[in-house]
Amino acid sequence: MSRIFRPRSYTVIFIVAVLTFISVTTVFAGDPTGSETTGILSSSTDPTVIALSESLTFVWMMIAGALVFFMQAGFALVEAGFARSKNTVNILTKNFMDFCIGGLAFFFFGYAIMFGADIGGFMGSDGFFLLGNYYDVFQARDWFFQMVFAATAATIVSGAMSERTKITAYLAYSFLISAIVYPISGHWVWSANGWLASLGFHDFAGSGVVHAVGGLVALMGAKMVGPRLGKYNKDGSVNEFPPHNVPFIVLGGLILFVGWFGFNGGSTLSGTDLRVSIVIVNTLLAGVTGATVVLYAGLIRTGKANVLDAVNGSLAGLVGITAPAAVVAPWAAVIIGGLAGVVLLWGVRFVEKTLKIDDPVGAVAVHGICGLYGVLMVGVFADGTYGVSGLIVGNFAQIGIQAIGAAAIAAWALVMGYVMFAVLKATIGLRASDREQIEGLDIAEHGLEAYETPGTLSGHLTGMAAD
Amino acid sequence: MSRIFRPRSYTVIFIVAVLTFISVTTVFAGDPTGSETTGILSSSTDPTVIALSESLTFVWMMIAGALVFFMQAGFALVEAGFARSKNTVNILTKNFMDFCIGGLAFFFFGYAIMFGADIGGFMGSDGFFLLGNYYDVFQARDWFFQMVFAATAATIVSGAMSERTKITAYLAYSFLISAIVYPISGHWVWSANGWLASLGFHDFAGSGVVHAVGGLVALMGAKMVGPRLGKYNKDGSVNEFPPHNVPFIVLGGLILFVGWFGFNGGSTLSGTDLRVSIVIVNTLLAGVTGATVVLYAGLIRTGKANVLDAVNGSLAGLVGITAPAAVVAPWAAVIIGGLAGVVLLWGVRFVEKTLKIDDPVGAVAVHGICGLYGVLMVGVFADGTYGVSGLIVGNFAQIGIQAIGAAAIAAWALVMGYVMFAVLKATIGLRASDREQIEGLDIAEHGLEAYETPGTLSGHLTGMAAD
Amino acid sequence: MSRIFRPRSYTVIFIVAVLTFISVTTVFAGDPTGSETTGILSSSTDPTVIALSESLTFVWMMIAGALVFFMQAGFALVEAGFARSKNTVNILTKNFMDFCIGGLAFFFFGYAIMFGADIGGFMGSDGFFLLGNYYDVFQARDWFFQMVFAATAATIVSGAMSERTKITAYLAYSFLISAIVYPISGHWVWSANGWLASLGFHDFAGSGVVHAVGGLVALMGAKMVGPRLGKYNKDGSVNEFPPHNVPFIVLGGLILFVGWFGFNGGSTLSGTDLRVSIVIVNTLLAGVTGATVVLYAGLIRTGKANVLDAVNGSLAGLVGITAPAAVVAPWAAVIIGGLAGVVLLWGVRFVEKTLKIDDPVGAVAVHGICGLYGVLMVGVFADGTYGVSGLIVGNFAQIGIQAIGAAAIAAWALVMGYVMFAVLKATIGLRASDREQIEGLDIAEHGLEAYETPGTLSGHLTGMAAD
Repeated sequence: MSRIFRPRSYTVIFIVAVLTFISVTTVFAGDPTGSETTGILSSSTDPTVIALSESLTFVWMMIAGALVFFMQAGFALVEAGFARSKNTVNILTKNFMDFCIGGLAFFFFGYAIMFGADIGGFMGSDGFFLLGNYYDVFQARDWFFQMVFAATAATIVSGAMSERTKITAYLAYSFLISAIVYPISGHWVWSANGWLASLGFHDFAGSGVVHAVGGLVALMGAKMVGPRLGKYNKDGSVNEFPPHNVPFIVLGGLILFVGWFGFNGGSTLSGTDLRVSIVIVNTLLAGVTGATVVLYAGLIRTGKANVLDAVNGSLAGLVGITAPAAVVAPWAAVIIGGLAGVVLLWGVRFVEKTLKIDDPVGAVAVHGICGLYGVLMVGVFADGTYGVSGLIVGNFAQIGIQAIGAAAIAAWALVMGYVMFAVLKATIGLRASDREQIEGLDIAEHGLEAYETPGTLSGHLTGMAAD
Repeated sequence: MSRIFRPRSYTVIFIVAVLTFISVTTVFAGDPTGSETTGILSSSTDPTVIALSESLTFVWMMIAGALVFFMQAGFALVEAGFARSKNTVNILTKNFMDFCIGGLAFFFFGYAIMFGADIGGFMGSDGFFLLGNYYDVFQARDWFFQMVFAATAATIVSGAMSERTKITAYLAYSFLISAIVYPISGHWVWSANGWLASLGFHDFAGSGVVHAVGGLVALMGAKMVGPRLGKYNKDGSVNEFPPHNVPFIVLGGLILFVGWFGFNGGSTLSGTDLRVSIVIVNTLLAGVTGATVVLYAGLIRTGKANVLDAVNGSLAGLVGITAPAAVVAPWAAVIIGGLAGVVLLWGVRFVEKTLKIDDPVGAVAVHGICGLYGVLMVGVFADGTYGVSGLIVGNFAQIGIQAIGAAAIAAWALVMGYVMFAVLKATIGLRASDREQIEGLDIAEHGLEAYETPGTLSGHLTGMAAD
Repeated sequence: MSRIFRPRSYTVIFIVAVLTFISVTTVFAGDPTGSETTGILSSSTDPTVIALSESLTFVWMMIAGALVFFMQAGFALVEAGFARSKNTVNILTKNFMDFCIGGLAFFFFGYAIMFGADIGGFMGSDGFFLLGNYYDVFQARDWFFQMVFAATAATIVSGAMSERTKITAYLAYSFLISAIVYPISGHWVWSANGWLASLGFHDFAGSGVVHAVGGLVALMGAKMVGPRLGKYNKDGSVNEFPPHNVPFIVLGGLILFVGWFGFNGGSTLSGTDLRVSIVIVNTLLAGVTGATVVLYAGLIRTGKANVLDAVNGSLAGLVGITAPAAVVAPWAAVIIGGLAGVVLLWGVRFVEKTLKIDDPVGAVAVHGICGLYGVLMVGVFADGTYGVSGLIVGNFAQIGIQAIGAAAIAAWALVMGYVMFAVLKATIGLRASDREQIEGLDIAEHGLEAYETPGTLSGHLTGMAAD
């Protein structure tokens, strides 16, 4: 890859330099934050104005949360499409249930640990079960929006561990990540007193908090459960398992994309912050650029237009823009998304070939590696219009803070991922047996096949048997 | 089941008692309705405040209505997935067309009968075709939101009558339920002067009005069309027909879940009622708890994690919370959703084994039985914070009113279901012939197969024939 | 067809006459625009009122835009479902990538050409890359909403050219239409100084701007790439290629329908225009009537209820109402939608039999012909309540203006479609070889099959090979 992209990196650097120059030297007649229009609202003490503003915020966050919820369907379809048909019920069950169990875990423990009264910048401590003072419309609003984010982090893992992980172990993991692991690192960044928040670390919608945590826990999970039977040959070479259903992958990718508008857009946490339009434009541009870069990289190299690459490229771009979505200009979103595609291409190869970890859907590269990449891009491209400044406007401190945050999040996710899966491996057991893998997990663990078996004509025979 | 759940029911009662005690003895610092923030709006007579509030309500209800519309896709996928592939076009056609025909029926008659000028608390009488005074933005807003609810009630029936019902009979039924049956009982509860509304009956988003009506009409339909060929053996034992496409069922379930946020959330009928966040949190919690309870009940009993049970369990929880969503606390939503799972497990068995009615998707249990259950739960768990009080805060009257409403709705749906299908059976005919069922309804009634036939290679042969 | 519909056309004319009479003679007590409630907002100069109104507009347009984006999934599924399985990856890739490439093209050039500073009513000229003054929340809001419309126009074409068009040619086309072709005719209608806008031409949400442009470019594309191998026999008769996946088509149709609420509803471009409810009701009614008319036309003629017809009928109704959605009453939407179904039936036959153009999904008839039809219906049914008056209220001028606009748009789309595809044909080449068509484009151009091949049991064998 490096040989192919070397000439382009000069081009990229050149374009960035030109655009940066244009950006920082332009006297804006535009209003890139909307504060000229709605700034008046934030200082208002008129109870009617507050009532209307809050109502709008509720409507916006409920809808954005519903869009984020819908991403569960996207993940389910992408992961199911990549699996072989004999493991389809298994991966669907995991996707459906990690949300359900995660929802309960976040209700019992997660929200309290993430947003309850702060203990030393490390974790929260009240609000369990939304009882007492937490039986409150603002708390419920935040609980809903945060819950669907927690569910996103949780569900990333199932793809990387697809096709060989026991369902019971996965269900137990779902509880742990949503109850404890995700909320603690989330507290560091997104609660008012979290230690990373206090440092000035910025992760707008969670390239680090959500995607890197999910993707790096996934890395440990995939490592510890081992590769799918038949993935690696004795000589170390790799077998490709083709996806069983490409339409599901494309549909899933489009659902994830539309959900991301809620994911990033809703992260304004306000119905009166007009910056939301920049956030959403940036999201769209990064996603489409990631897809385009990865598709053409493959087309040039192999002559084939691989839509699986395009879908993963769009996800890489979307993950990459998630942290910086609010603090960069649209032209920078294009760069960030395009480079995310390059990072993805390297990342997939790194995980599969170098680390020798079998990740059937590329979740580690897409969410883990591109998540950390996105966190760092805040420090590079933040243009100072929305409170955060990066390298392109001469601030060298932010990138350092972002690096500290990325390292802390990565360490936490990797260590906790190791601990969780080590405990599960020692108790419930992680890995389906060779026999179960050959037969398929659907029969073995679920007693159910994903599709009507062609040739058995079960309907016909059953129908006739009744005559 | 009873043996399995007996020890748990003590646990449940104990937990409910503790939580009730906590709830009613806590001096809330929280604001569980949001009236501290937005209460000021409802008394405002400032035309500008009214204009802004109404605008927000329009935006909210249009979006919520779109989400409810999307549930049509969820029903279509769930029902198609459960059918055998040879009946897939048939069930899809029913799902697609009941919305279309129902939309026209609701435009011609349904809305007028449900919300027009009241006649004796029994039905409405004007607003046909949205003409005259009804050519009005407020009427149009309400028409849209109510139409998608009517469509939900209508489409529930197709699943229970799947795989053996003639398409022409079903299309005629679609018109009748949306034009007359649903609007009349809906008028009782949701129009200002309906007789059940006047009694103090509360059904927030329609556990009774929508789901019980749909589910109990479905019961009569499934009864009168008879079981699918081959479902019951001569000795009374039951054959299972495995689903033809599990991914469709899971995707459909997730679409229904996301649609439910619009279904329940939009039922605030206001963009400035912050209680919406509690409504949505309750919806989510009941759905995930229902899924979790049913999945684990099966896992414990059989060792298999059945995702079909989980999807239906989530739907049971969602149906159960639909009536009480606005009037209970989140902890109660968890209880309601979990018990809905238990009710579902009993209900499916009751319908299939005791009533000997063949319901291929479990619609009667999910929507009919859990719908009535949800109506009753209002009388138990309503905590008085949002205008309705139930047993847990010492009000013994509400449960009686809820029982009257449940009985009235059930009687109406069963009688009208019987009348509709008896008339259709005597005229158009309800049941596809044995030959059509064996061949599959897709060929017989639609001249179309759902999938390209593997092995015929139609594309290849056609392509070559042209050479 | 004419024989079947002649008696009905009298009925239709009679009903229209009666409804028109009722409409124009009624003294409305209703408020069909909502201006009695929110008119006060438009004249307000209070910065707080403006801030709240604008915030609501942002929320509404972001969500509506997300719904329009989701239509990409609808197009992908409908087109994939209609294709043979061997060309499924190909059509999915086109759908996924035309959005991605189109997004970049619209960012680089399209938006500037469509909405930048006007040059002679013909095209815009600044705002490239959203730099300078265009780094602005209002511009970003409009960019997002307009981009998803541009993507809709672009993606219509892939269906008509399905199963025999080279991927590289299609990707190049995607750039051209989104960068230049669509933005120029769009400028004529939707920019303040466009020459058609100046004439008084009204196309609310783009029956002409979006659908006719897409559908007529598709006509030229399908013409120039030629029919699929095997479509036409030497005697001129036509072979039918059955769809490979009907569930995808129905799901896609429902997704398009729900997306249309954003498409038409969002085109109020305002969160405080209560007319939105009429727009959405009209959209729903036209869609369901189109489906019902086309389904019953087939059912009467052939005895079969063809759901593919119903889906395309709903799309015809939706395309037809897109231009007049805001300016007609609900009863007129029913007429417009129903007649759109008739236009579709004629159009499909005209394209396939008369023009001898192979359009696998009916895109030319649905979007091109019904798009022009919709533009004309503005001149007929606009009732004057929302600024535009048509024939039914005695204004004979509007229909003339609409005809000029329809002609201009059609000429532009056909000529530019010809130019684009002629250039691509002469350079990259448009048509996949016979061999590639027989083998399927998925293998040839993408190196990927849409589905796991049954019988090869790749998973099993690979698994065992590793032992």
